[in-house]
This record gives sequence, C-alpha cells and structure tokens, in this order.
Amino acid sequence: MKDEASDAPLTYAASGVDYDLMDPFKRMAQQAARATAGNLAHFGFQEVAASRGESAYLIEAPDAYLAHVEEGLGTKNLVADAMYRLTGRTFYDHIGQDTVAMIVNDLITVGAMPVSIAMHLAVGTSEWFADTQRVADLVRGFQHACNLSRAVWGGGETPTLRKIVAPDTAVLAGSAMGIIRPKERLIRANLAEGDVILFLAASGIHANGLTLAQRIAERLPQGYLTPLPDGRPYGEALLDPTPIYVPVLDDLLSAGIVPHYTANVTGHGWRKLMRASEPFVYVIDRIPEPPPIFPFMQEHGPITDEEAYGNLNMGAGFALYLAPEHVEQAQAIAESHGIGTLVAGTVEKRGDDKRVVIRPKGIEYAGETLGVR
Amino acid sequence: MKDEASDAPLTYAASGVDYDLMDPFKRMAQQAARATAGNLAHFGFQEVAASRGESAYLIEAPDAYLAHVEEGLGTKNLVADAMYRLTGRTFYDHIGQDTVAMIVNDLITVGAMPVSIAMHLAVGTSEWFADTQRVADLVRGFQHACNLSRAVWGGGETPTLRKIVAPDTAVLAGSAMGIIRPKERLIRANLAEGDVILFLAASGIHANGLTLAQRIAERLPQGYLTPLPDGRPYGEALLDPTPIYVPVLDDLLSAGIVPHYTANVTGHGWRKLMRASEPFVYVIDRIPEPPPIFPFMQEHGPITDEEAYGNLNMGAGFALYLAPEHVEQAQAIAESHGIGTLVAGTVEKRGDDKRVVIRPKGIEYAGETLGVR
Repeated sequence: MKDEASDAPLTYAASGVDYDLMDPFKRMAQQAARATAGNLAHFGFQEVAASRGESAYLIEAPDAYLAHVEEGLGTKNLVADAMYRLTGRTFYDHIGQDTVAMIVNDLITVGAMPVSIAMHLAVGTSEWFADTQRVADLVRGFQHACNLSRAVWGGGETPTLRKIVAPDTAVLAGSAMGIIRPKERLIRANLAEGDVILFLAASGIHANGLTLAQRIAERLPQGYLTPLPDGRPYGEALLDPTPIYVPVLDDLLSAGIVPHYTANVTGHGWRKLMRASEPFVYVIDRIPEPPPIFPFMQEHGPITDEEAYGNLNMGAGFALYLAPEHVEQAQAIAESHGIGTLVAGTVEKRGDDKRVVIRPKGIEYAGETLGVR
Repeated sequence: MKDEASDAPLTYAASGVDYDLMDPFKRMAQQAARATAGNLAHFGFQEVAASRGESAYLIEAPDAYLAHVEEGLGTKNLVADAMYRLTGRTFYDHIGQDTVAMIVNDLITVGAMPVSIAMHLAVGTSEWFADTQRVADLVRGFQHACNLSRAVWGGGETPTLRKIVAPDTAVLAGSAMGIIRPKERLIRANLAEGDVILFLAASGIHANGLTLAQRIAERLPQGYLTPLPDGRPYGEALLDPTPIYVPVLDDLLSAGIVPHYTANVTGHGWRKLMRASEPFVYVIDRIPEPPPIFPFMQEHGPITDEEAYGNLNMGAGFALYLAPEHVEQAQAIAESHGIGTLVAGTVEKRGDDKRVVIRPKGIEYAGETLGVR
C-alpha cells in the first residue's frame, strides 16, 4: 500500500480507524442495551448503571458484583504474521498473552478479578490450524496469561469464516467473567482533588496503535526488520507482550487499598486518563521515559507528540488514582510483580473543566476530545 | 466462484470447513485450559471438569454454578448482505437474534440461564457503521433476543480490523455469563435406558450449514432469489431467525423437571445427539417434517440424506432427553412459547455401543463420526 503523500504526518484516523463513524452505533447500542437492565430482576440482581461507560460491565448481586468483558486483540497478529515470515519465529505466544491482557486489564479497572477467560479465534480457512508450531505457541501464551491472571481458561470458540476473515489470518478475541467479592473491593469513580496519578509501566505499544504501526512499517526500507537504536528489529519490539496487571490490582485490593479510579491506557492514549464522567483536571507533571518503540514510531511516522500521547500509551500502561497515603504501598506491590511505577501527577477540581494537562510536553486534551467513554 | 464439478454432491468438508484440521488445536487448547483449573481455588470455586467437552463451561461456587460461553454467528451475515443488495431489506434484525441464539442455546444445554450477553462485532473498515439502517436493525434484533433470553445486554466490543476482516462484511460473535441457581437445576449427563428424546422445532437452517448454503446459491441461476416451492426466496428462508430456547428451559427447570441431557443441534447435525460421553444408542423412530429450506438444499446441492442429517438440524433445533413421565409437561411448556415438539425416539443402552439410528431414513452414525464433543 502506498500513501498519496508519504511524508505527511500520520494520524490515527488516517490509519483506518475512524471513531466518529462508529459513535452513532455505539450510542444506539448503549441505549438499547440499557433498556434490557430490567431482565436482571428475576435473578435478584441489578445493573450498576454507571458501569455502562466503563471498561467492564457490572451487575450487583446480593453479596458480590459480577463483571463481564468482551474484548479483542485488534490487528497485532498481522505484525506477528509478518515477523514469522521474516524470521521463522511465530511470536504467537506473545499474541496469546496480549489477547488475554486486552480482556483482563479492562476487567480489573473496576476492581473485578477474572474468574474465567474464553478465547475466540476466527479464521478464514481451516488450513490456518495446520501450522502446529504457531498453534502451540498461541495456546502456550494464552495459558501462561491465564495463569498470570489467576483465572481459569474456560473454553472458547474457533469458527472458520470463509469470505469474512482473510485466508491467512485470524481474529483473536475473547471474554471474561469476573467477580468483586467482598463488595468493598469495587472501584467506584470517587476521584477527589489531590488524588495522585500513579502510572504502571507499559512494556511497549501493547495492542493499541498497531494499524498505525503497520503503516509505518510500509514506509520503512527494511520494514519490520529496521533496527531500533537499541538494535532490536522494529517488528520484534512491537510484539513485546502486554503486562497482565491483574496481580497488582488483586494484591492492592487485598491490602485494603481501593483506588479512587483506574484507567487502562489503550485506544485514545492518555486522553483515557479522563474517562471518569465527573469533570476533573488531570495534571501530569512527570512523564515516563517512553520505551524505544515510541520515539522510533514518532520519528518515522512522523507522529507529533500531541497525536502520540493522544492515541498511544507512551510508556504508561495503566493508571491508578490513589489517596496520597496509599501511593508508596501501591508502588511496592507493583514492583514486587516486576512492574515499574511513576508518580506522574495529581487530580484537580476546577469546576466543570475536564482535561488532561501534560506539563512536560505542553500538551492539553480537552474533555470533548475523548469521544467515547 | 465456480466448482470444478458443479453437479457432484456437496459435502460439508468440501464447503470449506474441515474439522479434522482443527481437532489437533482443539485438543491442545483443551489440555492447556484444563491445566489452569487450579486458578479457581483462590475464589473458593472449582471447575466442573465434565463440562469441558460440553457446550458451556461450568464453575462450581458454594451456592450456584457459573457458566461461560463464547460463540459466533458463523457466516450467516454474508447471506444477509447478499439479500440486502438484492432486496433492500437488511435482515440484520434476524442476524442480531441469531447471534444471541448461538450463544444462549449453548448455555442452556447445562441448565444455565444467561445473565449477561455481550456483542462482538469486528469489521474491516469503519465505513461499515455508516449504514444506519443496517446498524439499527442489528441493534434491534440483538436487543429483542436478549429480552427473549431474559438476560441483560451487557456491553460489547466493536473493533475495526483492517486486512483481517473483509472490508464490506463483519464478524458477529459474543459471550454470555450464566448462572445455575439453585444448584439442583444443573443438567448432568445422567441419561438412562428408556429416556425419551423430545425435539424442539427448528425455524429453519439456524446458523449452521451456511457455508454450504452459499455454495448452493452460487449454483442456482437466480441465486438467493430462487423461489422455494412455497414461493419464498431461498435467501429469505435461509435468514429465518433461530428460536431462543431459553424460556422453554427456564420454565421446565422452574417446574422441577430437570432433563437428563440436552443437545443444541448445530454443527454436526444429528450426530450431536450423541454428544454425551457415556455410550448410548439413540434410536429415532419419528422425524420432523423438515422446513422447506432443507429439501430445497438437498435437491440443489445435491446433498444426500446421510450428509444432511449429519450436518444440519433438519427441523430438530434442540433435543431434550427426558424421563417418560415428564414428556407431556415439557411439550406443553414448549408449545406455550410457540415452539413445536416431536417425541422422536428413545435412549437405549447396548454396552459400549454409541450411535445415532434414524430408523425412518435407514441412517446410522457411529460414535466416532462425532469428532469433537
């Protein structure tokens, strides 16, 4: 594929994902879905209406909350497919972990722990399964990530979808059932002035911005084999597996620390820091050193800082919003799981003003730039 | 697309779905998944190991079972897309219902009632969402089916997967969290000699055999617009929505009738009647009059009876295995929901013999012809 103006800065919309076109569907679906809430009454359950805009859907039972997440990997497996052709290594162990990570890192935002995780693997032809090395790597990575998530791998579905899925590729997705018990472990959006924003380190690009990453590969003379300054091939760095943040949240909640809010930094990048519906100003004073994949992508896109921080995680994989007295213990817990942290900023209340302010970069995102919640 | 020998009988494998190629993956995945069962201990839960080969995955909690299903629609939406182009009617309300039916009709096989259903809708380009009529129909059908399922529509996911999903189509799938409570509502495989096999009527082809149905359309001069003997176009009849059998099972269990086993008749057709692992002989003495779509497909495939009953529902959408004294009440409950029934046969014990015998057709399927459970 050729861009008409290949030295023009790359934007997320130009890379093929247009959130504006999807928003009417999302609104229609959310409204229709909300109208079914009464169907929970015969179980003695009720929906947590506020969870409708959050990363996990919540149902209140008498002595627990049930959580449900349906999520997908996106297009990251296309990068693995390309690297497999170039290097002979499938990278599908990482793809398996990333699929699980996409599901469970959404689930934990509300304090739910994954109980069961199901895999959805849709292929274009049954021949996809003939590559037993790729299949074995995928199974191993998915299993490993379920173990890291402290959850059971509870089945799945593997349809062959001729004429829907491209013959040599696959749709990777899945779902999780989760639980919050005791109910005090629920993470509500009860943010307050002075809350500390603690970042959990990202391992790389995770599974967001991959369409953009593929466009960049098409512009590079050596494609995915182009070395980063640290010598690693671009494609390999893109495929670093996403951390599973479940143990951090589980241990934090078990220690009695309930974050005032959390954000899984995925699509919409740091704009997602203002996902809570109540307006606050999120002032970031310190930013993490981005993993090498990000400056490389910014240089070769080119991608402006505003576009990058507004769509990619830039080294901040997950955000915890904590009362100041809990920060130190939260850092210790994360680091005990090998996950770095950064005290990045604070939450401020300025009336109805909702925005993310990245002071070290002089970037601000106004509330209305986060189209979906 | 042209077949090399277009008058050769059509088989399911030739239509593009080769279960043999998938089986090694399925076995590998099931083994890896089983090994994660210990992760349930920290919740005080344990897996119901026997559910691994069933249509829904089950977890035992102290006072309930939790159930998890991940399922997909298959390729039925391609037929809707074709009919939309030909007639201007989207049929996506039926597609929405079918997606839910695929999920919940699996869930209820073990006695679980769907609590929350999530939609997964993966498209190739965001432009898919620009057709607001199709989008509105899909949302309406999905919502209607959630209501029929007595469950809440608990969110979903709508990724754009460039280069994975064909630009003008979509992958429709989803998941459900279910519950069995009180625990006595669990449907175990406790089949016994003399159990009655009661069929719940199918509305048509449901969402299995659609790849085969598309191949037949390619052979017909008028394609999907070819009229059936009853005058309805082939494509329209293919798109009759799948019944939601949830209310039948719910009311049956509430009436204190726990089937000894059930089977959702989907892929593998009537071979699925012998899904239970213990060997029995399933003797079918009466077969339903198949909806007009089936004799039409058999004629134009051509498809032999053995191939048809071994891969399609042929009018039997769901099977209940009941103690003889419960049959009449089960029929009354089904019919109160507008779902026809047929007392089709009985379960026999003949040592280690496992097979399905369709006496009126002189067809037998040996146990080993059901590759996957």
